[in-house]
Amino acid sequence: MKSLYSVILAGGSGTRFWPLSRTRRPKQLLALTGDESMVRLTQRRLDALVPRERRLVLTNAQQADAVVHELGELIDPTHVLREPIARDTAAAAVLGALAVRALDPDGVMAVLAADHVIEPAAVFADAIARAAEVAAASPTLVTFGIRPDHPATGYGYIERGDAAATDGFHAVQSFKEKPDRATAERYVAAGNYLWNSGIFVWKASTLLDLAADFIPETLAALEPLVTPDDPFPSADALRPAFERLDKISVDYGILERAPRVEVLEAPFQWDDVGAWSAIEDHLPRDAGGNAVRGLAHLTSTRNTTVFGDGDHLVATIGVEDLVIVHTPDATLVAHKRNAQDIKAVVDALRERGLDDRL
Amino acid sequence: MKSLYSVILAGGSGTRFWPLSRTRRPKQLLALTGDESMVRLTQRRLDALVPRERRLVLTNAQQADAVVHELGELIDPTHVLREPIARDTAAAAVLGALAVRALDPDGVMAVLAADHVIEPAAVFADAIARAAEVAAASPTLVTFGIRPDHPATGYGYIERGDAAATDGFHAVQSFKEKPDRATAERYVAAGNYLWNSGIFVWKASTLLDLAADFIPETLAALEPLVTPDDPFPSADALRPAFERLDKISVDYGILERAPRVEVLEAPFQWDDVGAWSAIEDHLPRDAGGNAVRGLAHLTSTRNTTVFGDGDHLVATIGVEDLVIVHTPDATLVAHKRNAQDIKAVVDALRERGLDDRL
Repeated sequence: MKSLYSVILAGGSGTRFWPLSRTRRPKQLLALTGDESMVRLTQRRLDALVPRERRLVLTNAQQADAVVHELGELIDPTHVLREPIARDTAAAAVLGALAVRALDPDGVMAVLAADHVIEPAAVFADAIARAAEVAAASPTLVTFGIRPDHPATGYGYIERGDAAATDGFHAVQSFKEKPDRATAERYVAAGNYLWNSGIFVWKASTLLDLAADFIPETLAALEPLVTPDDPFPSADALRPAFERLDKISVDYGILERAPRVEVLEAPFQWDDVGAWSAIEDHLPRDAGGNAVRGLAHLTSTRNTTVFGDGDHLVATIGVEDLVIVHTPDATLVAHKRNAQDIKAVVDALRERGLDDRL
Repeated sequence: MKSLYSVILAGGSGTRFWPLSRTRRPKQLLALTGDESMVRLTQRRLDALVPRERRLVLTNAQQADAVVHELGELIDPTHVLREPIARDTAAAAVLGALAVRALDPDGVMAVLAADHVIEPAAVFADAIARAAEVAAASPTLVTFGIRPDHPATGYGYIERGDAAATDGFHAVQSFKEKPDRATAERYVAAGNYLWNSGIFVWKASTLLDLAADFIPETLAALEPLVTPDDPFPSADALRPAFERLDKISVDYGILERAPRVEVLEAPFQWDDVGAWSAIEDHLPRDAGGNAVRGLAHLTSTRNTTVFGDGDHLVATIGVEDLVIVHTPDATLVAHKRNAQDIKAVVDALRERGLDDRL
């Protein structure tokens, strides 16, 4: 489809991959699961579908240079929108839609998170193309739902309704916030609830029409700043408008209220790789269940993930269920069951004044 | 006592403190238990008893420069004997005794390992002084025995016999090689067996007279090389003689056959700190039983020893019973119960061609 644009949201920060991820080197810039960074893999997944001139990136002003550098030849460096301050995903979606519409009044956009693992790429691209056909043909917001394999409490859920006109697509009955455990179990048992992947496809004009209805202040603040002559205003130009915006997610601000939302159950593997303990699923493992990146020597070691750096040697003896991450100025040794607690550790390190390690 | 000399045996190599200890930086050069290296602490323990001009060091040619550098102002750098090749402790004891006798025909020598932890220093010095009185007054070899607190299989034992003339000293009934577990348990239950600490005091001439009787070839090979004009022959000068020597320990070659050997039960704390897991006994521990050197941040962590280096941060979450050692080019994460297995790991690393980390 000649009017399909990709809009990668690459503004995430987060501390869950400390010490490898840092304030200035967030998860999407890391090569956690392969030889290339997650943001590069995200862009390359649509290599065949979206040519360079239709690739957009939305990030924050602090990370923009690093993101542009990382994407390198994959993008046009002028096709980058820099949010001056974080205002959640509704503002980002509107800003991206305004830029796409400025480039192409009929533009359809695929909104992609920069830090998910999705495979195989060809299946994903095919699903995006199918969603783009639906979105181009009608004022429909298309979401991608992931069939849950456990009652996760860390994702929002999409309640699937009746079958839609196009094969495989269903109407969305409702969006559900992150549930408690019992509710999540009920969702999974019911069978018609899917995880909300945060991947969306819509026509830019569809999204903007809905924004006019549901978040008119956001649209009014941003619309004058994005024009066909200047589709990518600078962070400085955006700042006064952003300072007036409320923090609203696109799910809450638009999707939950939109009359035509459809969901396609993802035919691809999807993982948002939320913690160190999830990395092992994307690395080769030895007979003992160990996954190693870098230079390591494991003895009597089981179910342990080692992330080394460069030429530094990590040797283990007699340990199990650990995540070991070595970087030049900080090393983490954590039990996998505690991999979620890294945020608290990072907070504590900040309180100790160790900001140069964060 | 004006004729008391210290002879530190600082030739140990070993891999048990890898990755902190290296081929060129053995255990005795490390500050494992305090702010100073073990060899410096060894020498300083006798500060008040043995002045600088009566301090000798016996090491191997490869480590000599590092040992001399480490001891610094504590020793006269010319008072160092460099063994060209390792020939066990009988040759070392004879060489040391020849040097002491060349300096002082009545010299009494305290033979000390460079890598033991002994406290308090004043109690140790007092015990050495008492032993030196006994050794000066008669042709007696004095050994120090350690009251066992468990049936260790890693030490030789001294069977204590009848009380000797001087209060606290006993005749040695026999020396026992490192026992198996059952034998060790019998020794401990019997009550009159002590660990052989490897600390000895004797008159140089006494040791040399016994060497003439029991290991005459060793004495004959070395005696011509050590003279009052040149008490500290070079490694090159010693090499032809050393190449002819058998490998014999002083225990086997002399002590087990000598007619007058006495043992003094050590009134001091003694630990040969044989593995990483033994280090914690010499470091302050927090309420969770953790011992930390360097920069670390421990969360939900118990009974774990962290040896950092410099400014590198080690963070742990949810682990217990680990030894974590960080050095600039290698990091070890080992369960304490496996701390003894480091030798095998080092051997494996050598086979992998990682000699630059050893």
